[in-house]
Amino acid sequence: MDNNTVYWVGLTRIQGLGVRGIHKLTGHFGSPKAAYMASLTELEASGLPATVCQSVFSQAGLKEAEEEIEAAEKAGCQLVDYENPGYPPLLRQIEDPPLVLYVKGHIQALSGHCVAIVGSRRASAYGLQVARRLARDLAERNMVIVSGLARGIDSAAHHGALEAKGRTIAVQGRGMDGIYPRENRRLADAIAESGAVISEFPLGTGPTPENFPIRNRVISGLSLGVLVVEASEYSGSLITARLAAEHNREVFAVPGNITTAQSFGPNHLIKQGSKLVGEWMDVVEEFPPEVRMQLLPSGEASDDGQGIQNSGRLFEESLTPEQKKVFEALRVDEALFVDAILDSVALPQAQVMQVLLELEMNGLVRQLPGKNFIRKL
Amino acid sequence: MDNNTVYWVGLTRIQGLGVRGIHKLTGHFGSPKAAYMASLTELEASGLPATVCQSVFSQAGLKEAEEEIEAAEKAGCQLVDYENPGYPPLLRQIEDPPLVLYVKGHIQALSGHCVAIVGSRRASAYGLQVARRLARDLAERNMVIVSGLARGIDSAAHHGALEAKGRTIAVQGRGMDGIYPRENRRLADAIAESGAVISEFPLGTGPTPENFPIRNRVISGLSLGVLVVEASEYSGSLITARLAAEHNREVFAVPGNITTAQSFGPNHLIKQGSKLVGEWMDVVEEFPPEVRMQLLPSGEASDDGQGIQNSGRLFEESLTPEQKKVFEALRVDEALFVDAILDSVALPQAQVMQVLLELEMNGLVRQLPGKNFIRKL
Repeated sequence: MDNNTVYWVGLTRIQGLGVRGIHKLTGHFGSPKAAYMASLTELEASGLPATVCQSVFSQAGLKEAEEEIEAAEKAGCQLVDYENPGYPPLLRQIEDPPLVLYVKGHIQALSGHCVAIVGSRRASAYGLQVARRLARDLAERNMVIVSGLARGIDSAAHHGALEAKGRTIAVQGRGMDGIYPRENRRLADAIAESGAVISEFPLGTGPTPENFPIRNRVISGLSLGVLVVEASEYSGSLITARLAAEHNREVFAVPGNITTAQSFGPNHLIKQGSKLVGEWMDVVEEFPPEVRMQLLPSGEASDDGQGIQNSGRLFEESLTPEQKKVFEALRVDEALFVDAILDSVALPQAQVMQVLLELEMNGLVRQLPGKNFIRKL
Repeated sequence: MDNNTVYWVGLTRIQGLGVRGIHKLTGHFGSPKAAYMASLTELEASGLPATVCQSVFSQAGLKEAEEEIEAAEKAGCQLVDYENPGYPPLLRQIEDPPLVLYVKGHIQALSGHCVAIVGSRRASAYGLQVARRLARDLAERNMVIVSGLARGIDSAAHHGALEAKGRTIAVQGRGMDGIYPRENRRLADAIAESGAVISEFPLGTGPTPENFPIRNRVISGLSLGVLVVEASEYSGSLITARLAAEHNREVFAVPGNITTAQSFGPNHLIKQGSKLVGEWMDVVEEFPPEVRMQLLPSGEASDDGQGIQNSGRLFEESLTPEQKKVFEALRVDEALFVDAILDSVALPQAQVMQVLLELEMNGLVRQLPGKNFIRKL
């Protein structure tokens, strides 16, 4: 908490000012403190309704804010306002970022490279298994797993991250004086030990249905991408996915059998262009190179390319002589047309095509449109 | 069979001439008969090897061709050569179309609107169920279901089409004097009753492994698109899918659980841009409008739009008042930006977004990039 927090919290207590109104006001005056210090004339010039100006001018909300801050600290929360350097940078970029975050746990987790894993509360065994595995695999690569602490996929994602001794963030749709659902209280404690449980809602706010879409924009806003594991036709996870698209974040989905209701959502997202995810690498490879560099431990990738070479050597040992020949004919910096590959390896065309398919299946080669091939690593 | 067939079959018997060589030769002389009538000097001017010219000039292959044609007719086959008006028009467009097709059943089936359904021989119960259902649903819409008569997905696809009393084509990887696998002999008979069993291989050709990729290009070549239901990592179905892409045909895939080996292939195809298919409409909607018009029976679509209106009326009866309001604000001929929709319906933004999502899920509305919405029918 910095000493501006009381003004941020104060503004949230003023009737008739929403999140967007407060951002407009603080943008106009430079800070919430400056808004509170402004004259009535200055406030009225900002274009806000007269009653709101009157409230701000009369310092409305500040007393409640002091009480709220004290109560939050007693409840073990840190408050991170919009001006705090610990405020998550990606969340700042959305249209209506929360003004204050209540945080139990480690504020630094909020600035890690986050990916959200969300899905159905009534998940299948398949969904739970996959959410847990992907969360574990991504957390092992130092990604922070964001989810909503709900039953089903959310819980599986948090658990998977903890299993990997990784960091995970639970974004609540209620005030931080409670945990929803109550059965997840121990999970929330474990999350806060290495990651964070957060909320933008004032203490005392219950887990009412209208809070969840508001909460979902924070799940998406924190994250480089949102991965939907299972979601039936009207699932809130699809709204989170839509928000992610609006926030210009990646949308990922794990496919499933078309005969399973819970796979309707992810399959539908994929049909509309979301990236199909079968393993952790499918997620990571969509992120910008500078993010990937920070995520992959040495051995998978490192700044000097040593790791790439190492893993390359490992790959090569597992290849057949023909695969090795074709792989070596390919370049990492330039796609080659199939004829160029045929020219440089002394193998029949049918065999080369088969080997290219094998290398592609092994994730070593990518086919680009028009029969062009490039090394993937 | 027309009276050119003997020359087409004859050329296939000449050593050193492959399918491409024969197309080159017949292209040069205008027809296989003209090639057989040419002088040795004319033949040599065509650029073929001297031994091949000598063979053609000495009428090699014609006697065997007469015997082959007689034997094929005895075996109940009709022969459709490349010049026959019954030769399937889409197959003609590939790079190396078969010269002669041996057909048991109805030649007209070859000129229907075909879609291939292929997949693993070792399919899961899920895969078999889905292949059968999609084949049935597509055959009911008058599509001809093409497959390879193999165990697993292929057989399920043929069975599904027959269940719908629709037409299906089995493309064999062996000569038409036998059925492979033998257990499918009764299935092959049933297929020939309304559709066709076909092959390009001479009588007596066994089902050797190298025939199957050659056969697969015919499965793809006949079809507007290829739908892969299940396929493990090294499945021949993935080769059929790749051929389809090379033939500029649609590639479709049914997703499945990422923990199932047989879903690796389809999920991989989708990752690379193939269309995800959850129901028959996902296939049909990719085809050109003139094809769709011919496929959909009145009630689903018809030339005068009466059918569209009927089904529209049915849809509307199942809508909530809010869904109806939003649906009516949309247009079929022009995408509307979300703000325009909000302006014309007196509902809160959050509700409109929810209703649009519902309509989208119901397949009534399509979202285009940039929050634009259009009626789907």
